[in-house]
Amino acid sequence: MKFNQFGQINNIPYNQKVTELINLHFLDSNTLADTTANTLWLHFLSKSFPEAKSDSIKKSKLNTLLANSTQTVTDYIATKKVDATSFYCVALQLLDFEFENDFNPKTPLESLTTLNLYHHQQVNTVEQVVIAWYDLLCTYTKSGHTFLDKLTTKGYFTSFYQLPASSKPLFFNGKSLPIFDTSSLIFEVVYVESDLDTDDDGKADLLKVEVIRPKDTNDGLKVPVVYTASPYNQGVNDELGKKLTHNVDIPLKRKAPNQTSYADIEYHSHTKSVEKRISTGKTTVAEESFGRELSYTLNDYLLARGFAAVYAAGIGTKDSDGMRTCGSPAETASTVAVIEWLTGKRRAFTNKDDNVEIEAWWCNQNVAMTGKSYLGTLATAAATSGVSGLKTIISEAAISNWYDYYRDGGLVVAPGGFPGEDADVLTAECFSRKKQAADYLQIKSVFQQKLATITQNQDRETGNYNTFWDARNYLKNIQNIKCDVLMVHGLNDWNVKLRNVFNLYQALDKLPITKKIILHQGQHIYINNFQSLDFSDMINLWLSNKLYAVNNNADSILPNVLVQENTAESTWHTYPTWDAKNIKVHTFSFANKQLTTTPTPNSHLANFNNHLDEKDFLYYQKNITRWQQDLLKENSALASSRLIFKTEPLKNDLYLQGTPQVKLRVATNQDHGMLSLMLVDFGNAKRLGTSPTILATKALDEGFHWREDNLVEFKFANPTDAKMITKGHRNLQNRTNLWRNDELLAGTFYDLDFVLQPMFYHLTATHQLGLIIYSTDMEMTVRSNENISYSFDLAACQLSFDADVL
Amino acid sequence: MKFNQFGQINNIPYNQKVTELINLHFLDSNTLADTTANTLWLHFLSKSFPEAKSDSIKKSKLNTLLANSTQTVTDYIATKKVDATSFYCVALQLLDFEFENDFNPKTPLESLTTLNLYHHQQVNTVEQVVIAWYDLLCTYTKSGHTFLDKLTTKGYFTSFYQLPASSKPLFFNGKSLPIFDTSSLIFEVVYVESDLDTDDDGKADLLKVEVIRPKDTNDGLKVPVVYTASPYNQGVNDELGKKLTHNVDIPLKRKAPNQTSYADIEYHSHTKSVEKRISTGKTTVAEESFGRELSYTLNDYLLARGFAAVYAAGIGTKDSDGMRTCGSPAETASTVAVIEWLTGKRRAFTNKDDNVEIEAWWCNQNVAMTGKSYLGTLATAAATSGVSGLKTIISEAAISNWYDYYRDGGLVVAPGGFPGEDADVLTAECFSRKKQAADYLQIKSVFQQKLATITQNQDRETGNYNTFWDARNYLKNIQNIKCDVLMVHGLNDWNVKLRNVFNLYQALDKLPITKKIILHQGQHIYINNFQSLDFSDMINLWLSNKLYAVNNNADSILPNVLVQENTAESTWHTYPTWDAKNIKVHTFSFANKQLTTTPTPNSHLANFNNHLDEKDFLYYQKNITRWQQDLLKENSALASSRLIFKTEPLKNDLYLQGTPQVKLRVATNQDHGMLSLMLVDFGNAKRLGTSPTILATKALDEGFHWREDNLVEFKFANPTDAKMITKGHRNLQNRTNLWRNDELLAGTFYDLDFVLQPMFYHLTATHQLGLIIYSTDMEMTVRSNENISYSFDLAACQLSFDADVL
Repeated sequence: MKFNQFGQINNIPYNQKVTELINLHFLDSNTLADTTANTLWLHFLSKSFPEAKSDSIKKSKLNTLLANSTQTVTDYIATKKVDATSFYCVALQLLDFEFENDFNPKTPLESLTTLNLYHHQQVNTVEQVVIAWYDLLCTYTKSGHTFLDKLTTKGYFTSFYQLPASSKPLFFNGKSLPIFDTSSLIFEVVYVESDLDTDDDGKADLLKVEVIRPKDTNDGLKVPVVYTASPYNQGVNDELGKKLTHNVDIPLKRKAPNQTSYADIEYHSHTKSVEKRISTGKTTVAEESFGRELSYTLNDYLLARGFAAVYAAGIGTKDSDGMRTCGSPAETASTVAVIEWLTGKRRAFTNKDDNVEIEAWWCNQNVAMTGKSYLGTLATAAATSGVSGLKTIISEAAISNWYDYYRDGGLVVAPGGFPGEDADVLTAECFSRKKQAADYLQIKSVFQQKLATITQNQDRETGNYNTFWDARNYLKNIQNIKCDVLMVHGLNDWNVKLRNVFNLYQALDKLPITKKIILHQGQHIYINNFQSLDFSDMINLWLSNKLYAVNNNADSILPNVLVQENTAESTWHTYPTWDAKNIKVHTFSFANKQLTTTPTPNSHLANFNNHLDEKDFLYYQKNITRWQQDLLKENSALASSRLIFKTEPLKNDLYLQGTPQVKLRVATNQDHGMLSLMLVDFGNAKRLGTSPTILATKALDEGFHWREDNLVEFKFANPTDAKMITKGHRNLQNRTNLWRNDELLAGTFYDLDFVLQPMFYHLTATHQLGLIIYSTDMEMTVRSNENISYSFDLAACQLSFDADVL
Repeated sequence: MKFNQFGQINNIPYNQKVTELINLHFLDSNTLADTTANTLWLHFLSKSFPEAKSDSIKKSKLNTLLANSTQTVTDYIATKKVDATSFYCVALQLLDFEFENDFNPKTPLESLTTLNLYHHQQVNTVEQVVIAWYDLLCTYTKSGHTFLDKLTTKGYFTSFYQLPASSKPLFFNGKSLPIFDTSSLIFEVVYVESDLDTDDDGKADLLKVEVIRPKDTNDGLKVPVVYTASPYNQGVNDELGKKLTHNVDIPLKRKAPNQTSYADIEYHSHTKSVEKRISTGKTTVAEESFGRELSYTLNDYLLARGFAAVYAAGIGTKDSDGMRTCGSPAETASTVAVIEWLTGKRRAFTNKDDNVEIEAWWCNQNVAMTGKSYLGTLATAAATSGVSGLKTIISEAAISNWYDYYRDGGLVVAPGGFPGEDADVLTAECFSRKKQAADYLQIKSVFQQKLATITQNQDRETGNYNTFWDARNYLKNIQNIKCDVLMVHGLNDWNVKLRNVFNLYQALDKLPITKKIILHQGQHIYINNFQSLDFSDMINLWLSNKLYAVNNNADSILPNVLVQENTAESTWHTYPTWDAKNIKVHTFSFANKQLTTTPTPNSHLANFNNHLDEKDFLYYQKNITRWQQDLLKENSALASSRLIFKTEPLKNDLYLQGTPQVKLRVATNQDHGMLSLMLVDFGNAKRLGTSPTILATKALDEGFHWREDNLVEFKFANPTDAKMITKGHRNLQNRTNLWRNDELLAGTFYDLDFVLQPMFYHLTATHQLGLIIYSTDMEMTVRSNENISYSFDLAACQLSFDADVL
């Protein structure tokens, strides 16, 4: 158990601490006048039990706390003076740490150091008690949120709900306080009018927007918005998606060589003018409410803290007009339209028929976008529009280029776990207008025709980058981004692969914005409910700064690059950069089954054949996990269908960063072919589990009697012998670029430069680094068990990557 | 997808339906005066969108509904008359079923039949529209609750919150309506004074009780209570529990033969008089609140419907006095004390020091108990006290005799998944007074000493039934039960094994109470969030009857025995009884590897040796799941350490019920020994997964903007070759009974009557029934890999059980 707080500000001046404690009702202006350190300590402690409504209850709560190995805090205060040891012995109990199990009452400061929790060495004077108490309130509990959050869940802030709107929000330690009554939130729906007509009905597409805002906005408070654009949140068509999923058990096709240039396939935008509605009036009152949105618990947390939450599913979803287009510029425009309404630059109506306008009059015109996967993707998309009012995006596991989601290296390469999925499948999945029978019947033929166009244009035949994908490459518009960007991505995310966030991260380097990145050890998950990291606190700091303009130095306090360690539980490191520019390059040559630091002098051939025994092939097709495991083994039914090269056991730990590069000289016995490369950590070790462990169900209340989340953490699983670090795929006919088909003659050697997916990996000494070369990737590529041989001239092969040596 | 509603009343008279619809504000007294069927239908439909606050929004919602394959309901009503087809085409959409995927708009009545949802054949007249609409409100949606519940989650009942307390509760279809504002619930703590002094401090143990009650109680409404006694809900000591867990990798010990009789070990109660507090006054106002209790979502559901929820952890838990005793009479008394307070027969105080009394003045003195596992166990325990005011218990996965939890057949047999756990471990786990350092320090030595006594008295040496277990056998006091009992148990629950509920079920037969039992296909789980069963609705019906005295015929409407089918998804059958009294007995003899219906004429020996190759033993010790799988296989490393006997493939389906009985004639080559028996279904088939699949996360709101649950269902997993039906264990020295040690001489044959755990299992034709005889049960018994041979005289062996032939 270890805590990593980055959203805690530790250098607040004393006077400001006093002021903030007064605002928090922990002090009043008289408390400090004539007090002693002991009295003040007791005063603070007695305020730590908001559940106690009488002095007797308060006293009994105090009597549960030990100040040392033998005395309750009450007894202690009667006989001794507060010091750091007694203060933190009590503090650890308030933070839910357990006597004997989690800390030693004789050495609480050591326990705090081990737990990696901020604390002071001296707590003797009144001033020191003030300082230590202030910082304690910002310190994490065992329950995965701050002590202040714990007090919140016990009702500390209920008396603040009634404060006048003009006194809200309140900030403490640079972050907005949970003084907003979540039981009186206002839920309302409006329909934003876009400039689009994606369903060709001659009318501008209206977009349903779900708004949740604090009731204080009715009393004049203007609040910022966290906006989550989620195409999923009006429902999904799982059956249809399943039906449309493409067969991947087909052979790879030879592509006719050509000389296609980027200019030939470049996407150029075209605008279509759309007739707008004529306004019939204005109102400030919405006509539609809703029960429960599909929420992101981070937004729930922020709702208790003075932010409105806004959800929109966009074109082609239930209750909206239009057509799904999967990543297109129209989808981006539909996403941005909501921000334009929030910031007063676009109209919304109370319903879809009466044309009565309603403004976002309650909004302070500052917007952030949140959400993971497609949601984070649309945040990225919106940012590339440069729309004003969008102050920051927190893009988690986001796609930056749809080609990098559904394709790789001139191949159809599925997101991990979703073989056969493609842009058309996702389009159909999210087309929730289908959920409403009458609406669907009306739009069905347009939908089917437009869907067919997507199926055609995505081009599963070649896997090449074409106009369809160029229109869906947000990286082209990076230069438009004006907002600050906080990226979050799982280092084991093979759904949205790392290249998506790496390319965005690198491209942002050239822009005058603040960028931050968090790389965790998860797959495709959220991280706002981890015990070891104060993610919600960090976001509160970030958004208080970006949306409420609180001068809290968020830009400098939050680390630029925060990476979760893969060889230890609950450990996070900060780095200046991820792009590995100033780091040592490591280069390896290929020898017989080995990666060596001395070049292979003479031509030396190695080869494998993609074909498996039919029974084995069928088995692996159905047992992808087993295929993944067997691929890493020395001996398995896969042994002759791949090559493994390993380094000597490492003498030092290595931190692998950025993108591994591989040069190959390869020939096949056919006129077509594909290669997959995998970098592997070989060495028996305990490794973090693939999914976080639930430590406590529904244990994280995002406010008081409000929505809840499970508390989770990555824990070591049983030891394993190897782990994939990264991989990549390439069509041998895309040696030049992604849009041109190169010639491929059987029996001819070709040189190929291969860039694998990015990585950030701690490889420990004694382990071996391995590279596996294979063809069919059961999880991601087509799989036909074709009889193709691949030969490599090892003398012309090379692996290089950047890594810190520790 | 299939629905099974047992809480829906279908024979409500027309006039009552009208009255209830008026109460529900779906009708007012004038609506029916001058209406047509079409107008009334439209009227009902327009009330089905509580999120719509204007006519325009209502209209647009109506326009999403198709009345047939081509017309919206609005268009339809303009041109045609309502009939059953149009009514139910629209109804299915209101129930969240999807056009094309879930129903055919041309044949909605067929779809309803397939989905097993109640409906009418004629909906043409005003009266028929009223009837059909009323019943539709009580019908399940695809989302796993009734249409009325769906309306609730969209805010239908918010306007009812303000009704005067005197108009509450309201019932519809015999069940209490969610007209209680869960955002204004009152959370308060009191301390009930028991007659116990389990921590020997000379003072009567005070018990912390958490109360959640509707605010309407402050305005004079008296409400009943669902009370959950959970020793876990103030926290658990996982580390301590782990530390105390017993080593099971030890040999079985020979027991010295004796002549112990039941009288020798019978438990006799002794009462110790305890000094009570002197009251210093009375109040109606509590002094302590709380943030979040560890709740059961069924209680959350009931809180929105006019029931208070009460949680208490009992003696020896955080904030209470006393000592954990794991199932003892003192624990039962501590559980009952809370009911006595709720019903005005015992004092509680506002805090632990001032002796100010507070009554449960808001309670209508009717109490039910709810909860699973230890929680359901304490409900059973409380019921055996005969305490008045306790009207019913809903005991889920409950222990009826602690011997049947931690022991079996003169052996220490662990609950599945918890080898080495015992009464002392559980005692320590739940002793949450340890969570509060100061309190713990004070009680530590008493705790350790009393824990040591439990460790000694539970007697892991012999595994025999003794005074300790006799004191913890609730079955002895069954005759005291005065309340109605609804039992729920998983047919695959190997934590609390089936014998617990079977024995309770049988014993209740002799009592003048109503008993109901639900047997599901789960392991040790709750079932209130299943899509296919209206469990919450059934409980609402049951508790409206038992606690609000609503004359809804709950006793006759709810099935006596409700069993989830194991060969199909979402299928539930009703039966008159589970004890198999009137069912055909099937008897099999043992031949070489076979179970035959013709007796084996001559003595025929079969034998196995418990010893495994050391490497295999170590592997299985660490891989219990693999051991479980391999035991069922013809060939595995376990083959020589067990015997398998199989029937011929069955010609007919069999419904196995009650307890299988096995007669064995066995000899060992040692003076001690144990046997395990397992009944197995052999036959490749798709079977339900071991855990329910989550269909939708947080999709079940228990009220409006209230607490949530996941929607789940058992789904078929991949086909398997075999499945354990039931098993049992026996020490060969407990042939006579559980308290006496019989002689066991090496090389001597003994007869043994073996009763396996009860079952309710559908064995399909073509499958084979198998019996496996083995000794070490890696999951449950001690495991020492001892070299013991077991020989069986098959001519004297017999298997018999009760089963319906289909």
